[in-house]
Amino acid sequence: MTGSEILLGRTQDRNSGTLARSLDSHGIRLERIVAVDDREEHLRAALADLIAGGYDLIVTSGGLGPTHDDRTVAIVADVTGLALELDEAALAEITEIVTGYAALRGVPVEPLLPGARKQAMRPAGAHVISPSGTAPGLIVPGQTTIVVLPGPPTELADVWRRALEHDAMSSLLGTQLERRVLRIWNTPESTVARTFDELGGDDHGTETSICATRLEVEVVIRFAPAARAAGTALADGLVAAFGDAVYAQDDLPVEVRVVQELDQRGLTIACAESCTAGMVAARLAGVPGASTVLRGGIVAYANDVKVSQVGVPATTIAAHGAVSAEVALALAEGARQTLQSDIGIGVTGIAGPGGGTDEKPVGLVHIAVVGPNGTSQVMERRFPGDREAIRTNTALTGLHLVRLLLQDERLSAGV
Amino acid sequence: MTGSEILLGRTQDRNSGTLARSLDSHGIRLERIVAVDDREEHLRAALADLIAGGYDLIVTSGGLGPTHDDRTVAIVADVTGLALELDEAALAEITEIVTGYAALRGVPVEPLLPGARKQAMRPAGAHVISPSGTAPGLIVPGQTTIVVLPGPPTELADVWRRALEHDAMSSLLGTQLERRVLRIWNTPESTVARTFDELGGDDHGTETSICATRLEVEVVIRFAPAARAAGTALADGLVAAFGDAVYAQDDLPVEVRVVQELDQRGLTIACAESCTAGMVAARLAGVPGASTVLRGGIVAYANDVKVSQVGVPATTIAAHGAVSAEVALALAEGARQTLQSDIGIGVTGIAGPGGGTDEKPVGLVHIAVVGPNGTSQVMERRFPGDREAIRTNTALTGLHLVRLLLQDERLSAGV
Repeated sequence: MTGSEILLGRTQDRNSGTLARSLDSHGIRLERIVAVDDREEHLRAALADLIAGGYDLIVTSGGLGPTHDDRTVAIVADVTGLALELDEAALAEITEIVTGYAALRGVPVEPLLPGARKQAMRPAGAHVISPSGTAPGLIVPGQTTIVVLPGPPTELADVWRRALEHDAMSSLLGTQLERRVLRIWNTPESTVARTFDELGGDDHGTETSICATRLEVEVVIRFAPAARAAGTALADGLVAAFGDAVYAQDDLPVEVRVVQELDQRGLTIACAESCTAGMVAARLAGVPGASTVLRGGIVAYANDVKVSQVGVPATTIAAHGAVSAEVALALAEGARQTLQSDIGIGVTGIAGPGGGTDEKPVGLVHIAVVGPNGTSQVMERRFPGDREAIRTNTALTGLHLVRLLLQDERLSAGV
Repeated sequence: MTGSEILLGRTQDRNSGTLARSLDSHGIRLERIVAVDDREEHLRAALADLIAGGYDLIVTSGGLGPTHDDRTVAIVADVTGLALELDEAALAEITEIVTGYAALRGVPVEPLLPGARKQAMRPAGAHVISPSGTAPGLIVPGQTTIVVLPGPPTELADVWRRALEHDAMSSLLGTQLERRVLRIWNTPESTVARTFDELGGDDHGTETSICATRLEVEVVIRFAPAARAAGTALADGLVAAFGDAVYAQDDLPVEVRVVQELDQRGLTIACAESCTAGMVAARLAGVPGASTVLRGGIVAYANDVKVSQVGVPATTIAAHGAVSAEVALALAEGARQTLQSDIGIGVTGIAGPGGGTDEKPVGLVHIAVVGPNGTSQVMERRFPGDREAIRTNTALTGLHLVRLLLQDERLSAGV
């Protein structure tokens, strides 16, 4: 991919992840990702290295804009020795698009036409993929197939999806590997890795990645149909070993699972957050359809707001301190009562960098979840890391505690 | 860097950005970033390509763990033709670290010693950089200097910082370029680019990147001391052209600026958020020291919560709909009064994917900020993108409106 902003560290590259996941799901092994800046000679050298590497497929992103400093197509033509030629159909399509743009904005179309013509050029023999913006993609057949994609992430995703459906790509698509995903909460990565080894590891044709991310270990077992028995045995062995800690066998964030389950069971939820200051509520609200379950929340940052808005007794704060299990429980119960929800979440902690003491250091958090019929979950954690890491992990733990509460049989017992 | 998780698209690479920004600030031009998976032959081929490319410096990250499948050091020794040898001082240092770990956890140290020995190996002549975890870094001198760093982001940052101070790096550090950063709010990138061209662009020795990110255009002008006059003229020209839209000349997020200014002026703030559901409050609380200015907030997701907790008149919702300028203003004023703050923020909108109508489509948001002395800022926007993009841009706009409110002279007029 190209882009000086990435090489200067000013922009995070999002296209690599999109392409990596798509390639993996289509049975194409991604072996190398290369980012270069916008200089012609650097893109040329990187492409030449990749072609010399004998890959079956190279995918480029970026450098397809209407101006002269977007040079990807010309360089691809150059390094593959193909003539650059105008694609009349592409020119017609792009001209129609920019004519529409111009009409919408009430500006003349003429200044846009040279750019449209530039974007309609292709190496001889390349297949043009319809654009999502104004830049078409290209499939350049050859010993190495080169797919040329626009850089803006949504355009890239659209054009890539269309390219995958083109006949010229069909010989590249591999056996789609099957996948088993296991997500294990609150368990050390080393413990998961040891059990994986004890179960025989990848000795029988599977390919497994074990990756510790925030508070969970994600195990992805990939296997061809021929190794299905081994893949299934490995996954089932891990499920048996870790039991309820295996909380998901899909890629969905925990808040999606929580919102869906609340919705199915007709339960509502509300939050009272101090150190996370709205992160739990915001994550729940990030799930489409959250409005059926999320009543709302109170960001009880100042102590007097905990008292006046959530009904935490001032005496509880005085006796135990604002960062205590007692206050977390009072926040959870207060959220539930004040906002008239079935379930309440309460969060309090010391996110730092200031505010820590020997007794209550930075990273100490108390999280409580309270439901009907006397159900509750409380947790004290001491999270390492900076303010953002502590707050993010605290919010995530709150969502997991809701998940655990939903497993409590008393919740729907109607006692 | 190495890491199958990145090549599978399961983990976002954070090290590239860290290194890119550091290299830039030390006058080293980063020309290529390469990511390969954990297979030995792929790392070997990528390193060979980079060495053949004639770079002055190659930095690797990852593959330094204590187990046999972390192979970076052995491969670096191999491709440079250097013998792999034990560094006694590194062995002593790592042994001390793992002995401490073992004692802390009450486990025997013996099983950890082979790993310590493996991590103490270096190519002959390489300089060892003290570890932050257990993996030391290495500086391998030569025609191309190779710096070998551990993969975990915090370890990488620490070891890299130490490596930069080593004598073996001094000849590589270039003239530190000076930088002018201009961040321009709510202005099209094409307008900024046109003005940049009219001011002469990079014709006089500057190097400028213009990058549109969320709701702002970031201009970074870099120049050697010899081109300082040109860099200054260009930056000043852009400031003159865009006036108050140039809201920052540093890299700080807008919420840092807002919290600092509120703190300096002794003002407090509170939020009442519907579609953003706590994102504005959470961003404010992300700034260390926010507790002096952030009173709290109300996540008024359900309409009856807007009425009962924030005091939005039910008649206002009935007359104008929950997504309206009137309700945004009532939320802002209600937040201010309920939570007894100087400034209130109110946010309401349709984040989608459902809930849109012809009259009020997905992406329509109303944001209001209200302060003392009759001051206020209101904005209606129609944001493109998905639920997350709409909510994130809405929260960001709320923070910008606070910034604009703080420029209102009436705010501190004491009328």
